[in-house]
Amino acid sequence: MIYNDTIVALATPPGTGAIAIIRLSGQDAISKCGYFFKSIHGKNLNKQRSHSILLGHIIDGDRALDEVLVSIFKNPHSYTGEDVVEISCHGSTFIQQEIIQLFLRNGCRMANPGEFTLRAFLNGKLDLSQAEAVADLISSDTEASHQIAMQQMRGGFSSEISNLRQELLNFASLIELELDFSEEDVEFADRTQFKTLIDRIIFVLKRLIDSFAVGNVIKNGIPVAIIGEPNVGKSTLLNALLNEDRAIVSDIAGTTRDTIEDEMTIGGIGFRFIDTAGIRDTEDLVENIGIKKTFEKSGQAQVIIYLVDASAIRRSSDAHNIHIEIDKIKNRFPKKQLLIVANKIDKSDENLIKEVFQSDKLQLLSAKENLGVDELKEKLLTFVNTGVLHNNDTIVTNSRHYDALLKAIEEITKVKYGLDTGLSGDLMAIDIRQALYHFGEITGEITNDDLLGNIFANFCIGK
Amino acid sequence: MIYNDTIVALATPPGTGAIAIIRLSGQDAISKCGYFFKSIHGKNLNKQRSHSILLGHIIDGDRALDEVLVSIFKNPHSYTGEDVVEISCHGSTFIQQEIIQLFLRNGCRMANPGEFTLRAFLNGKLDLSQAEAVADLISSDTEASHQIAMQQMRGGFSSEISNLRQELLNFASLIELELDFSEEDVEFADRTQFKTLIDRIIFVLKRLIDSFAVGNVIKNGIPVAIIGEPNVGKSTLLNALLNEDRAIVSDIAGTTRDTIEDEMTIGGIGFRFIDTAGIRDTEDLVENIGIKKTFEKSGQAQVIIYLVDASAIRRSSDAHNIHIEIDKIKNRFPKKQLLIVANKIDKSDENLIKEVFQSDKLQLLSAKENLGVDELKEKLLTFVNTGVLHNNDTIVTNSRHYDALLKAIEEITKVKYGLDTGLSGDLMAIDIRQALYHFGEITGEITNDDLLGNIFANFCIGK
Repeated sequence: MIYNDTIVALATPPGTGAIAIIRLSGQDAISKCGYFFKSIHGKNLNKQRSHSILLGHIIDGDRALDEVLVSIFKNPHSYTGEDVVEISCHGSTFIQQEIIQLFLRNGCRMANPGEFTLRAFLNGKLDLSQAEAVADLISSDTEASHQIAMQQMRGGFSSEISNLRQELLNFASLIELELDFSEEDVEFADRTQFKTLIDRIIFVLKRLIDSFAVGNVIKNGIPVAIIGEPNVGKSTLLNALLNEDRAIVSDIAGTTRDTIEDEMTIGGIGFRFIDTAGIRDTEDLVENIGIKKTFEKSGQAQVIIYLVDASAIRRSSDAHNIHIEIDKIKNRFPKKQLLIVANKIDKSDENLIKEVFQSDKLQLLSAKENLGVDELKEKLLTFVNTGVLHNNDTIVTNSRHYDALLKAIEEITKVKYGLDTGLSGDLMAIDIRQALYHFGEITGEITNDDLLGNIFANFCIGK
Repeated sequence: MIYNDTIVALATPPGTGAIAIIRLSGQDAISKCGYFFKSIHGKNLNKQRSHSILLGHIIDGDRALDEVLVSIFKNPHSYTGEDVVEISCHGSTFIQQEIIQLFLRNGCRMANPGEFTLRAFLNGKLDLSQAEAVADLISSDTEASHQIAMQQMRGGFSSEISNLRQELLNFASLIELELDFSEEDVEFADRTQFKTLIDRIIFVLKRLIDSFAVGNVIKNGIPVAIIGEPNVGKSTLLNALLNEDRAIVSDIAGTTRDTIEDEMTIGGIGFRFIDTAGIRDTEDLVENIGIKKTFEKSGQAQVIIYLVDASAIRRSSDAHNIHIEIDKIKNRFPKKQLLIVANKIDKSDENLIKEVFQSDKLQLLSAKENLGVDELKEKLLTFVNTGVLHNNDTIVTNSRHYDALLKAIEEITKVKYGLDTGLSGDLMAIDIRQALYHFGEITGEITNDDLLGNIFANFCIGK
């Protein structure tokens, strides 16, 4: 990879709008732009101070391509740490392309996905986990995912890792120093202090690793499957939760065949609701495929809402079959959060229902009349630690970080074992180096082209 | 309408990208933004000079919404002529909405479509025809439409109208002055000079009115219908012209039923090609609807390509029916540009074809083998005055301007008639005032809320 050429890309979303931004970065960015820019007031782009804006035209030969505003950012005070120019032009896709083509014809190169942020990382403007947070920030679509990305971008996560790494590095140096004096049998590294540090590191790593479950949920939304027998009102519940007519609803059992998914945000957390085909014995081929899918989807969900028809229960004995079905679901998905919901409560005897289901945490509901829907949403929220929105605990959302943390804790646990069993310094040093390596992978102190390629390939072009 | 409040809108295309711009304009724009902006270097937004950029965070209470760049433009040195702030944030739709909502909750108003440009017009930053050119520029998608919009935005068209209006206004004043001295029978306005001016105005108006035909074509593209009997290769020709597999092609006559339209640019001019159902007598109901549509679409086209199957012509007499069909088309569309194209020339006797069609301007072609396609494109270009791309003649593209010009020339013609017949000054003054009124409508010197409402309603929000 060459990093001293000048790259160009559209930085704003593709399409037509009032304004579009074309971004250039590299050592020739200002002079390349200055060559094709004619200021309204006869000013020279090359002589402008950093963080200033000029009005003028982009001229290709004798043809004016557009009236534009040009913003100058001088190295190192720019996003990439290089000289950066942002051209704010009229948001016609034709004009965007004409201006980009002009620079491509004149020695600039089209930026690869994420290359502006890659350069920022290579120039030390941000570390690797901060760079990754930029992509998370752009794709954030709930308050929770946005907040975690912001926190990570501002360095919360990596500074914690960096501090631990630095402390561990200090001890590693002392232990390696001991090896040079091995014949004299000295101990530069205080073993008691070292043990305390290792325990603290393990404690922090465990907390970070545990936070990934929550982090993953926040980043990707919580999948919630709505299952139950045909015609208990699953599609009606989906529509009530989403507050729109998403699924086709009819009185005919087996209306839903394809699973229907849609997302919504409750209390800043994203939920993905999955409406499924009703579970029953049927000879209808298409419906049977649907039922098979219901079980697949339920396997992927984190929460299962099992919906029963309360109006079908007229006396205690009516509940017998429903209890059998609920037990089947419990046995089939022992690790899932299961929520029993009694629908059509407007047409049934509430006291009887409560009596019949007393052993289960039951939510009473009428999806059709929109009764109990808000309470159900509240209950769903309790499955997530909603505290994450309002405290400053670091949360891991990136599976690359999660992997590195798992590897790091494995090595650190070896070090702890070594300390407890009086392992020799030279063997312990190897484990410490390994742990340091995995810490470094997170912040980008240790990196390679493959790793960088993988990370930045997921960015959009222009960032 | 109130124009002293502060408006806010997304200025970049909707959707996700690296960067999005949120624009504020109004007397409180800088202070409103300053209230929620915290500079990285502790700088005060209110004290920044115009055309400068600050890095910092948008903070809502204790929650950082995003790291942003804020550009300041101070009145009158801004697009709208008011204080303007542009917030360059990360291009997540969630962040865009959070920031816009923050300002809406705190005394800003969502901008109406085109309101930034409307304010620019009301504050005298551009005249009405320049403001309209901004919308044209954003929607321009060919070199020709872009160039005309650029020219109009830079004032080419309106300065010509303004000059004529000024000269006419001078004469009008003199003639009205004469009325005050009517009893003394003086002539302040030299009638010979006045006649010369009127002739010149009529000459310019005629040129501008005539240019509208070309202007309209450039703005909207030239519709070209491809018609002919079934299976002569119309869809193959469409695909060859577009250089992609747009239409389904088969050897079965009657494959195309729906008309298929697609656009492409040839030599900077937009063309809209319309592939149609083949014309034949058939009992197939759907196909017959298609054939009916073929004739409708041909009526809307400016150019008709009549495609014949050259491979079906083995001797002179084979051409008899084809000539009859061509004559039918000529009679049906006497005002259209008709282009006879002989397809499948790779499978036929070229000399025979030339002999048979000698009376027609014929284009030989094999759409399948891509022979003659470029020559056909060249021929299509000759239907437009391609000179428009490379000279500086003013071209009218806006139908509102066209209407006003038609009304102005009507009034000016009355004035000319009045001059020739020695009409009294007071009657002539009325016609002159009318002509001045229509000139003023174009540049916006004369305007009203309805007119402005109509014009700016077609803008996108944020411009």
